[in-house]
Amino acid sequence: MIKQEHIKNLKAIVGEENFYHDKAHMIAYSYDATRERYEPDAVIFPRNEEDISKILRYCNENGIVIVPRGAGSGFTGGALPANGGIVLALEKHMNKILEIDMDNMVAVVQPGVINMELQKAVEAKGLFYPPDPASQEYSTIGGNVSENAGGMRAAKYGITKDYVMAIRAVLPNGDIIRAGKKTIKDVAGYNIAGILIASEGTLAVITEITLKLIAKPKRKQTAMGVFPTVEKAMEAVYKTMASGVTPVAMEFLDNLTIRAVEEKFKKGLPVEAGAILITDVDGNLPEELSYQMDVIERVFKENGCTQFKKAANDEESADLWFARRNASQSITIYGSKKINEDITVPRSVLPELLRRIDEVSKKYGVKVPCFGHTGDGNVHTNVMVDGSDEKQLEIGHKAIEEIFQITVDLGGTLSGEHGIGLSKAPFMHMAFTEEEINLFRAIKKAFDPNNILNPGKMAL
Amino acid sequence: MIKQEHIKNLKAIVGEENFYHDKAHMIAYSYDATRERYEPDAVIFPRNEEDISKILRYCNENGIVIVPRGAGSGFTGGALPANGGIVLALEKHMNKILEIDMDNMVAVVQPGVINMELQKAVEAKGLFYPPDPASQEYSTIGGNVSENAGGMRAAKYGITKDYVMAIRAVLPNGDIIRAGKKTIKDVAGYNIAGILIASEGTLAVITEITLKLIAKPKRKQTAMGVFPTVEKAMEAVYKTMASGVTPVAMEFLDNLTIRAVEEKFKKGLPVEAGAILITDVDGNLPEELSYQMDVIERVFKENGCTQFKKAANDEESADLWFARRNASQSITIYGSKKINEDITVPRSVLPELLRRIDEVSKKYGVKVPCFGHTGDGNVHTNVMVDGSDEKQLEIGHKAIEEIFQITVDLGGTLSGEHGIGLSKAPFMHMAFTEEEINLFRAIKKAFDPNNILNPGKMAL
Repeated sequence: MIKQEHIKNLKAIVGEENFYHDKAHMIAYSYDATRERYEPDAVIFPRNEEDISKILRYCNENGIVIVPRGAGSGFTGGALPANGGIVLALEKHMNKILEIDMDNMVAVVQPGVINMELQKAVEAKGLFYPPDPASQEYSTIGGNVSENAGGMRAAKYGITKDYVMAIRAVLPNGDIIRAGKKTIKDVAGYNIAGILIASEGTLAVITEITLKLIAKPKRKQTAMGVFPTVEKAMEAVYKTMASGVTPVAMEFLDNLTIRAVEEKFKKGLPVEAGAILITDVDGNLPEELSYQMDVIERVFKENGCTQFKKAANDEESADLWFARRNASQSITIYGSKKINEDITVPRSVLPELLRRIDEVSKKYGVKVPCFGHTGDGNVHTNVMVDGSDEKQLEIGHKAIEEIFQITVDLGGTLSGEHGIGLSKAPFMHMAFTEEEINLFRAIKKAFDPNNILNPGKMAL
Repeated sequence: MIKQEHIKNLKAIVGEENFYHDKAHMIAYSYDATRERYEPDAVIFPRNEEDISKILRYCNENGIVIVPRGAGSGFTGGALPANGGIVLALEKHMNKILEIDMDNMVAVVQPGVINMELQKAVEAKGLFYPPDPASQEYSTIGGNVSENAGGMRAAKYGITKDYVMAIRAVLPNGDIIRAGKKTIKDVAGYNIAGILIASEGTLAVITEITLKLIAKPKRKQTAMGVFPTVEKAMEAVYKTMASGVTPVAMEFLDNLTIRAVEEKFKKGLPVEAGAILITDVDGNLPEELSYQMDVIERVFKENGCTQFKKAANDEESADLWFARRNASQSITIYGSKKINEDITVPRSVLPELLRRIDEVSKKYGVKVPCFGHTGDGNVHTNVMVDGSDEKQLEIGHKAIEEIFQITVDLGGTLSGEHGIGLSKAPFMHMAFTEEEINLFRAIKKAFDPNNILNPGKMAL
């Protein structure tokens, strides 16, 4: 419950029309893509950086919790007010593309800009913003930066952090800071932008982001390879990546996922295959594309690929991508509740990872369809259970815990792109030592000594 | 002066043969590339991470200052014991390439490995480590990471931070931590590796670095363009970079620099030219090279290029690069003391930057030859004075201060690749607000509450 006095003072900052604590708003801002729900005490819509500075200064002085929020499309509860407090909703007013600087190939945006809107705006000018999380049609750049979002194109083009040149942000005490410049290089001072990326809204509220853009490649081509076993496909993945050719994307679907898409959409997919790989290459010249495709075809076939299909045009390309695009929704045929994680390992241990996930699946008697961004070692692992069955849910969570342990043992990470938030906080001790978690806590304290900003996330 | 008791205890950790406090060692470890000198109280050569942990724990408990040092080739005094203490010299034992992992395209190295040794080792396996600071033949990877070194190839391939995947380090209290993984993506926990990069040895001692490698491009070609004015050349730089073609390098020399090289080496350089640009492109196919060269030639000529020369082979390429490679040593004809800085601006304001540097040069009556990495907006600005003349030195420093102010006014940074260290510490207030410097101090304190690690650097 928020005190009347605070309501009055916060309304004085942002105006009546930008502060709500009615039931409808509390419900609307209580959830994210985890489907867990925590109602905030209020929702506030700052109009600009100055509002945010005043709000944070006020809340810091009065011990009021603030939870920054973009589109609420996160998979780990990063934007959920798990400890109550006020949701600081950035999607309403702080959603402008401030500049697309063609000369320096840079975009300056507010945090509430939708990823896809930015992509479209820069592509209209012949430029390219590569990070493309699956949530691109609704997730915000602020959220992407806060979670360091990845996407399909990460194998070649990297992830959000590779494009952030500068950040403006408000510290919990209300101080406004700028970190980084509109320059490729900047080594003056500590890399504050670097630590704000992936900090899940726990250190500062990001108010402006300067992003590197690149020239849009003129051509693109898609291919699909069918493999007898998932191990063979995983061998083909890392051997392709080590061949010198870097595909834009190198995505995989395992047998369970292929079957699920086929059952739902009847597209004539190879349901007996152990796995399929779908890959895109790009470049400016036809010769670059055919060179890359030739290498990929050779490496795929050397690793047991029984069928290799190249798309001749955009329509065929969309067709090859269909299975991957519809994987996530299709696998729900295996259970009403999907416990999905985005573990990531060094690419060379992908075959072993998938083998061991299969063992876990058998041990617990649960189906674990897998698909994802194998080009960068990132596997979306989905433990499917009946969500209404407490016993099954418990088994599912045990299976996931075991998969996390396997991932860490193989030199991998709990999260390739979704973050820790609430969902993975219980597993932080698997991935980090006490000394490392102490360091995280010291950094949190350096930014936010009163712990008002998104408390309780990341096991801090 | 270091107490006998501490000498005894530190020798017990590393062995007699790895601890020195004789005059010869004090002198040998008193300088870096700034030519300033500060003698340490002792020099210690840790054999491994465990030694470093024990040393730091002991020094932290006893308030003894530690200054980590690689090759001592830094340009800003980052490795100088400006406040006394013990130099922790990492080049002697901690200098091994631990692993070159072909499957994952990753190298794992100790901090004392020389940049060029790593480049050679990975190129022998068909892989490529792009960061190539001018000091590559003697600077260490640990130093490169600590200063976030750039180099010639940054225009296309980025800088050191773009290749650091994981770091092991020892905190001032002796805790050993690991940050990052051998995975392209890792968003679990705060980005500790990100903040250690460019932290100039003030937060932790780096003991192991995992670096991303890429496939070595099969072909490369060099070209040179001659321009009537430096402004025209700068226009050509940013318009080339915005054309969709990304050269590996795009280096420039101004008229003063061209004349200096010509005077020293008589190579028949165009001494009347306002500036020359030297550029490299690379790729796997001949078509990629000719496509890029055609675009560059067109953009250069549209911007006043009077002569465009493409190298037909390695020998001609080395010839075109000769002037750039010898720029730094040649400009000493203008004065015995070179006050050199590595300011960086957004590329589109390069023409204005150079115009304004010329004004400063005239105002103070000093020669300011400029050259450098214009492809990423990084200009090596050299105020040349008579080093034995106090009055001239003072004028030189005033000129540099004015150039820093211009750089910051144009949205640039004090340092593109050399760091802040001691040399630029007095100018931190130009580039950062009090709030930002307070945040740096809070971060320093979170890592190093007793301020034992490389104190006095970066104006903290």
